[in-house]
Amino acid sequence: MIHFSPSLTRLVTELKKLPGIGERTALRLAFHILKSPRVCGDIAESLINLQKSVRLCSVCFCITEEDPCSICRDDRDDGVICVVEEPQDLLAIERSGAFRGRYHVLHGALSPLNGVMPSDLKITDLLKRLESKGVREIVLATNFTVEGEATALYLNGLIKPLGIRVTRLAHGMPIGGDLEYVDTATVQRALEGRNEL
Amino acid sequence: MIHFSPSLTRLVTELKKLPGIGERTALRLAFHILKSPRVCGDIAESLINLQKSVRLCSVCFCITEEDPCSICRDDRDDGVICVVEEPQDLLAIERSGAFRGRYHVLHGALSPLNGVMPSDLKITDLLKRLESKGVREIVLATNFTVEGEATALYLNGLIKPLGIRVTRLAHGMPIGGDLEYVDTATVQRALEGRNEL
Repeated sequence: MIHFSPSLTRLVTELKKLPGIGERTALRLAFHILKSPRVCGDIAESLINLQKSVRLCSVCFCITEEDPCSICRDDRDDGVICVVEEPQDLLAIERSGAFRGRYHVLHGALSPLNGVMPSDLKITDLLKRLESKGVREIVLATNFTVEGEATALYLNGLIKPLGIRVTRLAHGMPIGGDLEYVDTATVQRALEGRNEL
Repeated sequence: MIHFSPSLTRLVTELKKLPGIGERTALRLAFHILKSPRVCGDIAESLINLQKSVRLCSVCFCITEEDPCSICRDDRDDGVICVVEEPQDLLAIERSGAFRGRYHVLHGALSPLNGVMPSDLKITDLLKRLESKGVREIVLATNFTVEGEATALYLNGLIKPLGIRVTRLAHGMPIGGDLEYVDTATVQRALEGRNEL
């Protein structure tokens, strides 16, 4: 390939930087793009468009094209704020349809080993939001990873003293989950959190 | 997602048109691109660059940025032309290092059911190349699919009467292949084509 087109080589190099795209997939995508000039143009245009029009909402720090974002402008319960790591986590919660409050996107989780400290996340902005309005509850929906749990603990330590209720998403069996195949820690948590029928 | 950014939705739609990229992968790629403006710009630029600089070589119809392409300009055996379906097939043969002749890219294989007829491939151009120069041999390296085999047969019918030797890539066991796991048709062909040691 090297000798037939430096610009094809360059596209392959760029595509390989994407998560989950290796040499072979990059090559397959590049040849596909090469075969259809319309696809090539459309993707280039939508990338440029994305770069120009997307920004962070100044209230919740989700990605948006208008500031404040549609969720912040929406008629929702101002008393509950759900804190997530990334915009795609917000998406997952919105998809569930079970939450009608506001959001706050941290843009990461604490990870001192990787150099992610509290100042790297939108934590100060979250605390500022708590000062002004009548927030009753913070739902911590960071991931259930070491980093996500650490972030939840850290935020709990900051927010509880303000007299605001702090909750965390429930642990337990997934819907359709098979006891036989679920990991022991999840079964433990599901037992601990068992509910009266 | 719909409500947070039309341009993100559009990028996801475009990415989903690529082979092997579904909704989830497209979303993951789009969020990755969104997080790093440099990646976004680099890919857009390399796509535009690709569109501008890549064309087909007027001799072999491989993709190239200079016409004729580097292989056609290279010091190689003019007497042997290897016929492939796509530029990526040429790549595979070049990678083997076992061929030092010229190439001809058909840009597809005959498939009457899908409306791909001889006039849709670079067959006339191949015959034109045979008129002028002292070509001794045509190596048919179309794929070993129904379409590739049909194309090879069709080309054989056209080229053999010109008094040129027509060969086809050998069938047989792949290197490192395990008899137990190789399909029966391949084992059959490997037996039929067995060589003296």
